[in-house]
Amino acid sequence: MALLVVGSVALDSLETPFGRREDVLGGSASYFSACASFFGPTRVVAVVGEDFPEAHLGFLAARGIDLDGLARRPGRTFRWKGRYEFDLNTAHTLDTQLNVFAQFQPDLPAHYRDSEYVFLGNIDPDLQRAVLDQVRSPRFVGCDTMNFWISSKRESLLRTLERVDMLFVNDAEARQLAEEHNVVKAARRILTFGPRAVVVKRGEYGALYFSGDEVFAASAVPLASVFDPTGAGDSFAGGFMGYLASRDGSLDHGTMRRAIVLGSVLASFTVEQFSLDRLRSLSPREIRVRYAEARRLAHFDDLEADVLLAGTGD
Amino acid sequence: MALLVVGSVALDSLETPFGRREDVLGGSASYFSACASFFGPTRVVAVVGEDFPEAHLGFLAARGIDLDGLARRPGRTFRWKGRYEFDLNTAHTLDTQLNVFAQFQPDLPAHYRDSEYVFLGNIDPDLQRAVLDQVRSPRFVGCDTMNFWISSKRESLLRTLERVDMLFVNDAEARQLAEEHNVVKAARRILTFGPRAVVVKRGEYGALYFSGDEVFAASAVPLASVFDPTGAGDSFAGGFMGYLASRDGSLDHGTMRRAIVLGSVLASFTVEQFSLDRLRSLSPREIRVRYAEARRLAHFDDLEADVLLAGTGD
Repeated sequence: MALLVVGSVALDSLETPFGRREDVLGGSASYFSACASFFGPTRVVAVVGEDFPEAHLGFLAARGIDLDGLARRPGRTFRWKGRYEFDLNTAHTLDTQLNVFAQFQPDLPAHYRDSEYVFLGNIDPDLQRAVLDQVRSPRFVGCDTMNFWISSKRESLLRTLERVDMLFVNDAEARQLAEEHNVVKAARRILTFGPRAVVVKRGEYGALYFSGDEVFAASAVPLASVFDPTGAGDSFAGGFMGYLASRDGSLDHGTMRRAIVLGSVLASFTVEQFSLDRLRSLSPREIRVRYAEARRLAHFDDLEADVLLAGTGD
Repeated sequence: MALLVVGSVALDSLETPFGRREDVLGGSASYFSACASFFGPTRVVAVVGEDFPEAHLGFLAARGIDLDGLARRPGRTFRWKGRYEFDLNTAHTLDTQLNVFAQFQPDLPAHYRDSEYVFLGNIDPDLQRAVLDQVRSPRFVGCDTMNFWISSKRESLLRTLERVDMLFVNDAEARQLAEEHNVVKAARRILTFGPRAVVVKRGEYGALYFSGDEVFAASAVPLASVFDPTGAGDSFAGGFMGYLASRDGSLDHGTMRRAIVLGSVLASFTVEQFSLDRLRSLSPREIRVRYAEARRLAHFDDLEADVLLAGTGD
């Protein structure tokens, strides 16, 4: 079924302990759609400036991504500059230039409006709803957000969440949004805001999924080399939603678990190189192999029947 | 098979966001043996002072724990005072009084010397080897340590590690010991120091196990209420080693995985209340139930055969 993403298509400048890059392809919609495209076509709603390299559009188009909703406007492309310390879990933003993104008013091409699966990337919650308003009957809506919107546009964000099926947040965002330190309690509180599921992303540790009484913990595949964590969250969402959209409407617990592991797997590839570089060479076979690896990593057998009989107590 | 632990039996004073306690039962050997005792008898080597309450000894003895190697010496018991912020993953030590522990020279009762399973709690690595020297033919030696010994007695610690089968460390200790920031690389480096396996404990996130090419990630059971993380690491080791010692010498990958999950399960109970209080009421049935919960938490199915065919790429 058709999958739509709204978010940023950006030029990033990055400093990590392993090197730096200037004006490389970035943005939530870029990472999301590149990852989702392994599972099927993805429709992008975003805006770039006159300076945005044609080659980047060519890369996305070659992956079967529908760019009819990607507007090119006078001015410069959205730019983000960030730095990572040795603790690669935390990004320090050095500079944000909205540029053409400041006037962004999403206007969906007619053929986008029947999309069943919608991912609202991390943008102003007003704009997230403006996109939803243009989709006729979304079947499953995923949503990302960040500390900036949680603190500055909380009411608008809560209105968006009422229309969302699943929220993707990290630990800190979950705590801030729920105003509750314990992650389990925070997730349960967020479920009262509207979403029927929430994924709490925990960087190199993996992710927790909560929905009703269902709890699932996906361990991230431990990586010996992480170069650039930028886009990990959007890659996670792209793998998750891409898989879901390819499953003909199935939303049962087993499907959600596989989707979360695929999200984690796609994110694990993204961080192995700068920008979207690893995704350029990534093959479906590699995704399958790492999924199997994630399964071997996490699985263990039932306890033997004779255990826990030797000690005291009943 | 017989299991022996050397470590501290202490009186702890704790401050957490949820309350405070003065002079409660603590110490690595207390937590370890209480958890291991669910699987079978455990022999304790430790020292306490004249002020150590009989009731605490009564509690341990009632759990079938062998206290013949627990010496009572003139002076005060080892005391530790710590504080936890809302981030319960990190303990801030406010005060440490070694007291009778300062002169501790482990001397094993004759019947301890045939122990097949040995856990060297977090004490001076010289003392860890002094204990090992008194065990005739240990089959499996587990070992804990901390930043203090890694920096102040590195050479001695490395001599201990040459005689150890499995090291239990947290992320920060693994990085410090291996002098390598990436946890995967750090674990692989530690395996070159002697141990054939290493467990990297990651607090509320779970634990990673490395041995040869085998990697296992155990997610911690997400808890809605964590009161006091003190003793989580020793409870983990106690559950792990207690189970292992009950398995008649089996050390295959499957057994190690179940042992790690049981360690994680025991730790998850310990942190639910102050001191060893939760362990006092804990039943084998509750351990089994939470083990099953940990399994439901972590498991997921194979990918369907038709996934990843819709996108581009090969």
